[in-house]
Amino acid sequence: MKKVVVIGGGTGNFVALRGLKRYDVDLTAIVSMADDGGSTGILRDELGVLPPGDVRQCLVALSNSSRLLRSLMNYRFENGNLGGHSFGNLLLSALEKVTGSFEKAVEEAGKLLFIKGKVLPVTVHQVRLKMILNNRKILEGEKEIYLSQDIDKGYKSIYLEPYPKVNPSVIEEIKHADLIVIGPGGWYTSVIPNILVDGVADALRKSQAKKIFINNLMNRRGQTTGFKVSHYLKEITSYIGEDIFDYILVNGAKPSEDLIEKYAEEGELVENNIDDERIILADLLGPMILSSNHDLIRRNLIRHDSKKLAQEIMKIVDYL
Amino acid sequence: MKKVVVIGGGTGNFVALRGLKRYDVDLTAIVSMADDGGSTGILRDELGVLPPGDVRQCLVALSNSSRLLRSLMNYRFENGNLGGHSFGNLLLSALEKVTGSFEKAVEEAGKLLFIKGKVLPVTVHQVRLKMILNNRKILEGEKEIYLSQDIDKGYKSIYLEPYPKVNPSVIEEIKHADLIVIGPGGWYTSVIPNILVDGVADALRKSQAKKIFINNLMNRRGQTTGFKVSHYLKEITSYIGEDIFDYILVNGAKPSEDLIEKYAEEGELVENNIDDERIILADLLGPMILSSNHDLIRRNLIRHDSKKLAQEIMKIVDYL
Repeated sequence: MKKVVVIGGGTGNFVALRGLKRYDVDLTAIVSMADDGGSTGILRDELGVLPPGDVRQCLVALSNSSRLLRSLMNYRFENGNLGGHSFGNLLLSALEKVTGSFEKAVEEAGKLLFIKGKVLPVTVHQVRLKMILNNRKILEGEKEIYLSQDIDKGYKSIYLEPYPKVNPSVIEEIKHADLIVIGPGGWYTSVIPNILVDGVADALRKSQAKKIFINNLMNRRGQTTGFKVSHYLKEITSYIGEDIFDYILVNGAKPSEDLIEKYAEEGELVENNIDDERIILADLLGPMILSSNHDLIRRNLIRHDSKKLAQEIMKIVDYL
Repeated sequence: MKKVVVIGGGTGNFVALRGLKRYDVDLTAIVSMADDGGSTGILRDELGVLPPGDVRQCLVALSNSSRLLRSLMNYRFENGNLGGHSFGNLLLSALEKVTGSFEKAVEEAGKLLFIKGKVLPVTVHQVRLKMILNNRKILEGEKEIYLSQDIDKGYKSIYLEPYPKVNPSVIEEIKHADLIVIGPGGWYTSVIPNILVDGVADALRKSQAKKIFINNLMNRRGQTTGFKVSHYLKEITSYIGEDIFDYILVNGAKPSEDLIEKYAEEGELVENNIDDERIILADLLGPMILSSNHDLIRRNLIRHDSKKLAQEIMKIVDYL
């Protein structure tokens, strides 16, 4: 069975993993630990736990449990002091307290949810994501970066503080992978933060696995405004240290003009500007329907389709 | 397989159920729904859910899941807005919201915890337990009753408001039981509230099952001060409408003088004053060690022993 390692965090990872779950592959999700917004941020601040939100999404994506249990994980309390907390976040935080280890908590939650494969936090140290803009403003935390409209005017650096040790299992997974999938996902908030962890870029460069980069569908206004595929590739390559990718998967389908207009304020569709044999141009667009997963609704309606994404990835796996 | 129905709620039920779980019997726990203190009270008030606390304890008692999962259910968050909430209560409340039904929530939680038998809330309606004292003071809610020091001066009535319909499954279970176990447990806060639900007393009187009354070990100061076995029996009989019991199980062992002295403020040991062939006098005392279950620590250290209690109950079951 081929070993497929998916690196990301949040909704982008969710979509890819949910699609790949149906296939006969050995799946590992490596998850960014920079989240500090919403329910996750409150739990970090009040309980001193590691951020559960992105891990929760990956666990749900890989879960073979009942629909009810998956809904439960994403259920958000509506009232009182619990208001806004997702149940799955509380589960992971309570498990971290009971087991004394976030890794163990993720493993136990994985058993409860009958997940296919495994979910690994990229680091098990408390870190904050920070960014210094060209105007010298420092963005403190993933949430502030996520909300910033000034990143496209240039930034000096993005880093994790304190500089974290990698989870050793992550290095092992990258080393023994047959295929490594990077993206899609929040560019400065999920995809790049994984690469910022000590040892990850090095492991990626050394790994014999084939590597596929899945470009985001949409630019994010104020962040990646005007980016084309070459910009994404160049920027991630600068963090990895060399261009490691064997395949670059890019969406070639167009959403309706209505929808593009509706989302014009959030950002525009990413265009391909590379003429390169590594480029795979395919229809990757998901249906534009509302989902019961609140996170998906809030963050993006023009999004990748789980099945189409997985089909394209599996074409490569079958070829290995 | 003999059908054993245990009626109570809270810690008393927990001890009996945990012991009976090891035996080859068809177990049902019927649980009082009057709790409104602590984490349970906050969830009732803020989320409008039914009280999860006593149900949680019964689920844990009957669980065949890992020790970790059972610890998780009883884990209480320590800080922030979540402080004081037990994880199991949050699980039941979230499941109630996701499924739209408390009964369904209890059933699903039972599956997650691999419970032996079943746990049934005595009613699925929102009720408050109230008590009118002889001095005309009205105690509003289970918590106020639990904390009152004036009940032993006499009360006019104890009732649930609004007068609740019984959970129909409860009547079925009582009807088809081979043995019904009532007690031990909080006298005015767990044991009697079950009998106050419309139809329960009637079903108990009609049931062909053998009935065993397990007398509490300790009186509760300000509540059952000076009670002997005859007082307990007389009072519960007044709510059931007739003396239905075939066996009355009473502790015959004495804790150390040290411990009795230490707990003198809480109450004194219950003495038997009945000369009746239904009385079974046995050593039912548990070890006086600290338990990791916070609820047990807080409420009582002189308590029944799960194994001894179950052994005595099983002697009767084997005789049926």
